[in-house]
Amino acid sequence: MDACGLIVEYNPFHNGHLHHLLEAKRESNASCMIAVMSGNFLQRGEPAIIDKFHRTRAALASGIDIVVELPFVYAVQSSDLFAKGSVQTLNEIGVSSICFGSESGTTSNFITSYEIFKEKESIFQEELRKNLHKGLSFPDASKFAYEQIGLATEEMDLSQPNNILGFSYIREILDHQLAINAFTVKRTKSGYHDQTISSSIASATSIRKQLFHEGNVTEQIASTLPANTEQQLNEYYHKTSVWHNWEQYFPLLHYRVMTMDHSELAGIHGVDEGLEYRIKKTAKHTQSIYEWIDAIKTKRYTWTRIQRIFVHLLTNTKKEHIQPLKTSESVPYVRLLGMTKQGQAYLNQQKKVMNVPLVTRLPQHSSFLLECEEKASNAYYSILKPSIKRQFSKQEIGPPIIIG
Amino acid sequence: MDACGLIVEYNPFHNGHLHHLLEAKRESNASCMIAVMSGNFLQRGEPAIIDKFHRTRAALASGIDIVVELPFVYAVQSSDLFAKGSVQTLNEIGVSSICFGSESGTTSNFITSYEIFKEKESIFQEELRKNLHKGLSFPDASKFAYEQIGLATEEMDLSQPNNILGFSYIREILDHQLAINAFTVKRTKSGYHDQTISSSIASATSIRKQLFHEGNVTEQIASTLPANTEQQLNEYYHKTSVWHNWEQYFPLLHYRVMTMDHSELAGIHGVDEGLEYRIKKTAKHTQSIYEWIDAIKTKRYTWTRIQRIFVHLLTNTKKEHIQPLKTSESVPYVRLLGMTKQGQAYLNQQKKVMNVPLVTRLPQHSSFLLECEEKASNAYYSILKPSIKRQFSKQEIGPPIIIG
Repeated sequence: MDACGLIVEYNPFHNGHLHHLLEAKRESNASCMIAVMSGNFLQRGEPAIIDKFHRTRAALASGIDIVVELPFVYAVQSSDLFAKGSVQTLNEIGVSSICFGSESGTTSNFITSYEIFKEKESIFQEELRKNLHKGLSFPDASKFAYEQIGLATEEMDLSQPNNILGFSYIREILDHQLAINAFTVKRTKSGYHDQTISSSIASATSIRKQLFHEGNVTEQIASTLPANTEQQLNEYYHKTSVWHNWEQYFPLLHYRVMTMDHSELAGIHGVDEGLEYRIKKTAKHTQSIYEWIDAIKTKRYTWTRIQRIFVHLLTNTKKEHIQPLKTSESVPYVRLLGMTKQGQAYLNQQKKVMNVPLVTRLPQHSSFLLECEEKASNAYYSILKPSIKRQFSKQEIGPPIIIG
Repeated sequence: MDACGLIVEYNPFHNGHLHHLLEAKRESNASCMIAVMSGNFLQRGEPAIIDKFHRTRAALASGIDIVVELPFVYAVQSSDLFAKGSVQTLNEIGVSSICFGSESGTTSNFITSYEIFKEKESIFQEELRKNLHKGLSFPDASKFAYEQIGLATEEMDLSQPNNILGFSYIREILDHQLAINAFTVKRTKSGYHDQTISSSIASATSIRKQLFHEGNVTEQIASTLPANTEQQLNEYYHKTSVWHNWEQYFPLLHYRVMTMDHSELAGIHGVDEGLEYRIKKTAKHTQSIYEWIDAIKTKRYTWTRIQRIFVHLLTNTKKEHIQPLKTSESVPYVRLLGMTKQGQAYLNQQKKVMNVPLVTRLPQHSSFLLECEEKASNAYYSILKPSIKRQFSKQEIGPPIIIG
């Protein structure tokens, strides 16, 4: 049985993802669709609106056969680590192809870009270093470095967010010579950062913004979502009275920072170059997450970067937790969140030949990464009422979700 | 000008304290009454109902001339460290006498007991060690050890809480040969732990219990409080809508523990002998502070001891913060919280001859202990609304309170 992998965040699972899934099915001709999905915190440093278990249900009901978790330590990271975790997880579970969305939409452009990049990598690294040294943000610094080596053209613009991610997947595959065929489909209409819902394929950002603004799934929002996503959004809210957003975590994060000293702060992943002083100083005068990030941000420290740091602070993720990942070749386990009957049939075969454990319940396997997973999950649920918090945390130790 | 020192917690400042103050004034014949007062967290490991600034106002309005702070690192501790911090602070500010309340009420009994104790100290320590080894709690272990050396008689019962504290003050004075004259007044009627208000001199515990039960200062409660205390209780509530109690801190403390690993927990002051596993394990199933302490407590780990540990967890107070205090001879500074005109006149003279800095605003003097003070204060105010939290935290950097 052939499997095709998708790399998704699902916040929430919208029509764009559905479109992508159908394209991937058609192009790959695979009989099993596997999604590696971010857990409760997303790449841009935000809590997911609803938890990973409810998003897993939406994904399975929409045509995905297997949902595996992108470990937390890889999820809230810049594109290199995010790509390493995603691609290596899909590789361990044995996909023969990976399909990713991009602004470019032309697979051959990515392959050509990779070849150019390898040829000029030393120039790129030198430019990048110089740009960072000037005080530019990482996105800007790498954008100008790509320009220098001719990778910011109309055909292949590596300053666009989905192209950057896609290029990172390609690099991970080709650098490690993985037996995976990668192809891309064009991200249509709404971009990654678009804030208004302008079509039936809206960006996750715009849907998210509208959801929090309206406080319920309006008809306009519903028109951009698969029915299964709408159902899970409503179900989660019905059970918890919460759709997660950063502001709800302000009291916890503020308390945490106000009881840390500078050296502890500097031990948190992402707190570099004396940022601990800026975080502490601004904390004294702030009354919301928004106000706080706004007070910290600089040309170099972008909004997204600070949001990621806030996730690491909230979840107590230290430099010592992340450092070893940068040099490790693969992932230490694959965690199964859910599957259909079709997915189960695939896994029954696949698990016999896997090189790393397939984890189906949290305490089953002991690993440093799973401890980080547990802390992240605890932090995510910490804003719920005690009785619901307890009940929802138990999902982590339950069996995977099986539907269909 | 002669000064007499009192060691108080003021939670709240009740008629018993007023009685004690009048007795102390009469007995010492001092012209200046100085109180060393616990800050926002009290010896038994509880947040004070209202903050130290409002309690300072009540104390000054009730006849105290100077209020200085018992540094946080000494305040939430067993009697030895508590006594060291209190007595040394009063010594640095130059009191010629100290008056403490006790169940015994006879000063000579304490002096005699000290002499017996010094003579038989090695037997006491050996008994104590053996009893602790058997798994007894510290209070029980020391009670039986005192019995062994004849210090649990009717005249001098060192199993009673105020006698224990008083004996610790005497030891601190005589061990260091401080030029301080100590005397005791009898604690009348209601004991330390009494839970009902039975007379106009009620215990702090009973007043506290009643206050939280009723949610306002009833006539019965008011009859046990000086008018100034009642006023400050009401004023604090009016400004913040809060009287502090442990349950309000449950979401923060639970979040904190759920995102710590075992080794971090074991670094917190008081978390010894594998207690980190018990704290983490019970956290998963608990929905309140009460339920949580009840699940952790054992014969050896008493309710009070766990409450103290919870304060250290909440305030992020580590073993490395407290360890050096045990061997230090004195306190590194004296922090002034408030004074009357009379107190000011005393301090104008006294500060010229003091051996340690007199700190009147928090950032004035840099010290490890003051950093702990700031973290404790931040933790205490963390349950207030953001705008009020910000305003109240600023009290720490303001000038001392001056009245009269």
